[in-house]
Amino acid sequence: MFQINENYPKLPGSYLFSEIGRRVNAFQKEHPEQEIIRLGIGDVTRPLMPSVVRAMHAAVDEMSRAETFRGYAPEQGYEFLRTRIARHDFASRGCDISPDEIFVSDGAKCDVSNIQEIFSTDCRIAVGDPVYPVYVDANVMAGRAGEYDPDTLRWSRVIYLPCTEENGFVPELPEETPDLIYLCSPNNPTGTAMNRQELQKWVDYANREHAVILFDAAYEAYIHENNIPHSIFECPGAKTCAIEIRSFSKTAGFTGVRLGYTVVPRELVTAGGQALHPLWIRRQSTRFNGVSYIQQQAGAAVYTEEGQREVEESIAYYMENAKRIREGLQAAGFTASGGVNAPYIWLKTPGGLSSWQFFDQLLEQYGLVGTPGAGFGACGEGYFRLTAFGSHENTDRAMERLRRGTFG
Amino acid sequence: MFQINENYPKLPGSYLFSEIGRRVNAFQKEHPEQEIIRLGIGDVTRPLMPSVVRAMHAAVDEMSRAETFRGYAPEQGYEFLRTRIARHDFASRGCDISPDEIFVSDGAKCDVSNIQEIFSTDCRIAVGDPVYPVYVDANVMAGRAGEYDPDTLRWSRVIYLPCTEENGFVPELPEETPDLIYLCSPNNPTGTAMNRQELQKWVDYANREHAVILFDAAYEAYIHENNIPHSIFECPGAKTCAIEIRSFSKTAGFTGVRLGYTVVPRELVTAGGQALHPLWIRRQSTRFNGVSYIQQQAGAAVYTEEGQREVEESIAYYMENAKRIREGLQAAGFTASGGVNAPYIWLKTPGGLSSWQFFDQLLEQYGLVGTPGAGFGACGEGYFRLTAFGSHENTDRAMERLRRGTFG
Repeated sequence: MFQINENYPKLPGSYLFSEIGRRVNAFQKEHPEQEIIRLGIGDVTRPLMPSVVRAMHAAVDEMSRAETFRGYAPEQGYEFLRTRIARHDFASRGCDISPDEIFVSDGAKCDVSNIQEIFSTDCRIAVGDPVYPVYVDANVMAGRAGEYDPDTLRWSRVIYLPCTEENGFVPELPEETPDLIYLCSPNNPTGTAMNRQELQKWVDYANREHAVILFDAAYEAYIHENNIPHSIFECPGAKTCAIEIRSFSKTAGFTGVRLGYTVVPRELVTAGGQALHPLWIRRQSTRFNGVSYIQQQAGAAVYTEEGQREVEESIAYYMENAKRIREGLQAAGFTASGGVNAPYIWLKTPGGLSSWQFFDQLLEQYGLVGTPGAGFGACGEGYFRLTAFGSHENTDRAMERLRRGTFG
Repeated sequence: MFQINENYPKLPGSYLFSEIGRRVNAFQKEHPEQEIIRLGIGDVTRPLMPSVVRAMHAAVDEMSRAETFRGYAPEQGYEFLRTRIARHDFASRGCDISPDEIFVSDGAKCDVSNIQEIFSTDCRIAVGDPVYPVYVDANVMAGRAGEYDPDTLRWSRVIYLPCTEENGFVPELPEETPDLIYLCSPNNPTGTAMNRQELQKWVDYANREHAVILFDAAYEAYIHENNIPHSIFECPGAKTCAIEIRSFSKTAGFTGVRLGYTVVPRELVTAGGQALHPLWIRRQSTRFNGVSYIQQQAGAAVYTEEGQREVEESIAYYMENAKRIREGLQAAGFTASGGVNAPYIWLKTPGGLSSWQFFDQLLEQYGLVGTPGAGFGACGEGYFRLTAFGSHENTDRAMERLRRGTFG
């Protein structure tokens, strides 16, 4: 008589973005005339870049001829892509990461939720609060989170790192010692990035405590200030305590292409000397079958000179939106942060509204979709996330609607 | 102080196909002059079909224009693909599967190794012996397999279903009662397919015992005989006891494209009434980010009239290889089965060789790569798998080399 994974029923509600989708669809059905502007889910809107499009057409053509057809890809990804990643994303910043420490995947969401599998279920995790829900939910499913308290929105075995106005939304070292520490910088959802000193403090702490930092750098391409590391491996000591996860989704608009990668340094070992690198090889070779040649060629095109120029242009476009949102919110009297080194703006809900109340008012009265902060954890209550991934036109119209708005 | 998943060190050796790759590469390095013919890993060799190539080019073009660009795909897959799957793969065979019971993925290997996550780690699994190693290894990693005995090649908590010459390589109902039953038909590695009566017996058994059948139908396109079900849902009662996993890899040559799907019927519930469908939605929406629009359009093209004609032609080509292998083996005095409803031929190693000994002899003396049966489990010892996925020319040359061979 089969039984289900007893951790699933502990998960409250549905996955955050599914719930948002549900509310938006229900509203749209009742009000088909209302044009909805979406600054909610962090999905890009600009088309694929010309260099990427050319590379994909060429790869499809190669796949159409017997002489150049490719079946199963190498387990860790094609070398042509991994060497470019190593050179461009790491060597150029003084990080010594070799291509065989890089594992190409179909996206950061899979990697960030799969990486916990190679660790003991006894490990205690630490997460920022607010936090991208996948970190926590994947650990709930694996049985690491303990029990959920719907009043506090917290799990009994999770160590929370509050990111609040008081600490500038930068997590501080916890009192209890975690084994696995999820850090995301530039941060989703707060839009805050950790500077070199702040991140180094965590690297030193992790080395001291034999903890592993799972560093989500999906938004590194949005960093504009100088003192913000693009990779955790810019911090001395990170190779003995950190795994880094990267995405092409927000860098090159690949949300609909699916490509990411994870760096597992060879030097990263347990106190007993067990290396993680071979475990991740085993996990990926057993439970994953690689990424299509076409997607990997698309990724390689991102690293060409033309590709880099197009990436810059695209990021500049979105960051112009971020600026308009920040300025629009200020003009409308909101308190907001983020949007300087990240495509996310984190605002305080007006009039003492809860973040879901504000979500509903924005949707129902102004046809605007954002993401309620409470969906990211207890410390997200009273906050709201807007994204810079729309068009200039829609961003301006959204700000216009917000300026006109009265809430509460 | 972090600890690793304590189940990983229990896994013996490396993943089967990684080990084969390692031995072949080592041999090739020492003997660069030897031309190697690979009938080992089940990877296709024919290029993508014209209808698929056209669909992918068109999809890439859509992604290159703002008006038709698509970001994150719907969690379960695009409806245009799911409706075609429901109509073509199920309704046409009298199976009542609705599009919302279909979950599009990046391939059957991920699905078949991920599906165990929604079940309790207390569940006991049953697998054929020999068996595709992913079923077992995924459960070892999750802690369901118990301890490994290197002498018997068996795990203490796994229930084995021997598939031997005596039972025609068709698994029989076990004495101990499993909770999860992995069935693969047409079978990898034995090439044997279960007929309607044999499969119905398992469906009735699973319903009686409240077990779930995880039915891997990756090779259904190779079925040629009439009494072999293409889907487990052709058997009355399967919707209350079975999950089916399908792949485009062997149907349409998508090993390098990555597309598959899983069917979780709404009626499939635990004895306590807990449905599995919402659990799989939750798992996929939390830990997976969908499949690229381009890949899904490629999949949709497979269901067009032209696509179907091309699939038939491609399968006929590979099955001609299967015939040549079977006949070639017979002519050379081997005992072999399979290759009628499957692209795999399962042969007895000659001269009392172990399957890895035969592997090494074939590689070193004849430059031929196959898959040693022992890599698939204890009952695979003394057997060897050849695949029909080469070219006619290479298949003929491989048979020629085998005919000339003396082994032992």
